[in-house]
Amino acid sequence: MELLKQEIVKRGKVLPGHVLKVGSFLNQQMDVGLLSQMAGDVYARFKDKGVTKILTVEASGIALAVLVAERFKVDAVFAKKSKTANVEGNVYSAECYSYTHKKSNTLIVPEEYIEKMDKVLVVDDFLANGEAIRSLKSIVEQARATLVGAAIAIEKGFQGGGDKLREEGVDVYSLAIVESMDQEGLTFRN
Amino acid sequence: MELLKQEIVKRGKVLPGHVLKVGSFLNQQMDVGLLSQMAGDVYARFKDKGVTKILTVEASGIALAVLVAERFKVDAVFAKKSKTANVEGNVYSAECYSYTHKKSNTLIVPEEYIEKMDKVLVVDDFLANGEAIRSLKSIVEQARATLVGAAIAIEKGFQGGGDKLREEGVDVYSLAIVESMDQEGLTFRN
Repeated sequence: MELLKQEIVKRGKVLPGHVLKVGSFLNQQMDVGLLSQMAGDVYARFKDKGVTKILTVEASGIALAVLVAERFKVDAVFAKKSKTANVEGNVYSAECYSYTHKKSNTLIVPEEYIEKMDKVLVVDDFLANGEAIRSLKSIVEQARATLVGAAIAIEKGFQGGGDKLREEGVDVYSLAIVESMDQEGLTFRN
Repeated sequence: MELLKQEIVKRGKVLPGHVLKVGSFLNQQMDVGLLSQMAGDVYARFKDKGVTKILTVEASGIALAVLVAERFKVDAVFAKKSKTANVEGNVYSAECYSYTHKKSNTLIVPEEYIEKMDKVLVVDDFLANGEAIRSLKSIVEQARATLVGAAIAIEKGFQGGGDKLREEGVDVYSLAIVESMDQEGLTFRN
């Protein structure tokens, strides 16, 4: 998506350790006009797939997931990163290692929020090593629901997680794939 | 908002300790059609106030905040609950005690995300003791920006936080105010 690539070049910041900071427009501060266009793009790509549910991870995936769900007119669910006092009953869960925060989380979704009939589109802001998407895929499989695909705002192509998931048959659609980046600049996959 | 009250009665669950669980439609699972109508209601209430920014707290406030921001055509910002590796530079911060999770958090917003010129509408899913709204108010004051008001999905009127904020001059607008609740049922303030 050309507009997103332009905004990444203009407003993104490359930090040491392969960190691409987009907090000023896609994460802690959200350019909702841009996110809304991104949601429209995701909808156009998956609109004929019978999507019944959007699944994401708290917190930074929620904004795009909600705007995508608004277009599909379906509910969105986010996986929580740790068990809170308010989660009760049976849950699906999957371990997930975050390279950004250098710790392992358990992603948790109550069983009642994903049904066997559901066709689930996973949505997230970043895909690097693919850990989060793999965990969400596991949760969809535990529910015996169908994984329609994964829609990602920014894929770090050079980290290989997206291509590995594609090889495994997951329909990964990324709005921008960064092929290389350093303090000098970024290049995108076409 | 009548529709929200109906959904709370139909789908909400009252748990011991004044916990109203709405996870199946307003929190971990999000009925985006309902949230979208709620956002429209908030927009109608504040549309003449010159709002330039929506401010909320991760994670459960993000969905409504983004849908409200979409209508105002402004950016949304969420306060993070703890300092992560990716937060750099100067930040506004405020302590916030969560009665739900029985622990104190520091809410953090980078200074660059709220400017002195901003007219900020605070959005959140719940208001009980008013701790979160008070912390967000403090952040807006630290930025010397203007607090337009606070739009809340569900206020627990019997806990008094909303009325205290109103007495202090904050324009608190709640889509549903629960006046009492127990395992038998709920009553709303008219």
